[in-house]
Amino acid sequence: MDCIFCDIIGKNESAEILYENESIISFLDIRPVNYGHTLVIPKKHYENFLSVPSEVLGDLIQATQMLSAAILKSLAPDGFNIVVNNGVAAGQSIFHFHFHIIPRFQSDDFKFRPNLKSYRDGTMEKFAEKIRLAITT
Amino acid sequence: MDCIFCDIIGKNESAEILYENESIISFLDIRPVNYGHTLVIPKKHYENFLSVPSEVLGDLIQATQMLSAAILKSLAPDGFNIVVNNGVAAGQSIFHFHFHIIPRFQSDDFKFRPNLKSYRDGTMEKFAEKIRLAITT
Repeated sequence: MDCIFCDIIGKNESAEILYENESIISFLDIRPVNYGHTLVIPKKHYENFLSVPSEVLGDLIQATQMLSAAILKSLAPDGFNIVVNNGVAAGQSIFHFHFHIIPRFQSDDFKFRPNLKSYRDGTMEKFAEKIRLAITT
Repeated sequence: MDCIFCDIIGKNESAEILYENESIISFLDIRPVNYGHTLVIPKKHYENFLSVPSEVLGDLIQATQMLSAAILKSLAPDGFNIVVNNGVAAGQSIFHFHFHIIPRFQSDDFKFRPNLKSYRDGTMEKFAEKIRLAITT
């Protein structure tokens, strides 16, 4: 399987690695939204957010929190976003699961104002009911 | 303290609740980017991503995964984003930590193409080194 992230993990592709343990690796995104844009990924290849085992996901978000604190301390952005893109329609381009940490600045050009929708009478309840019926814990 | 999410948790404010356990609650965002836009939050009030204890964060991301699967199954979007806004500069407006789950459709109007930056010679290594020095595990 051809996967650029697996190549980085295997040290067959270079990257600015920030952190690494047995199961997780973190490195700088080479096409950053802002400088310091960081990726946090499992070493084992999982395609997306839904295919990562839940305990691995827990470890990944904890590493992401730790790295966010380091980015805040070292680069002093005004804030940051954590982002997961799941599926092509959501902007996923590499199909090896990754959390993005994106440092944010008050006057950066990442600003976007989505057109927020409103629910018409009764529709919000219908959407909620559909989702509730699909929940399997 | 005046917190709309704490009011929802205390049932002093209505919401379309999707899921609830002892420590976590999930409900529909009333100003959705797309219909079915969902929030997942800790019942205890933590201001942001960095102030949530890491074990609570693990539980939250696991609930977020479970709810994402339910949204995918029930609403059949083409994909979804998981988003955290940390700080005003990153778009945070409610200072009670929350994960967003945003269902995405191929032709929705949430599309944004940030101007990706390039690192000039040597600068990528310098950014990485700054962050590495600030890591405390």
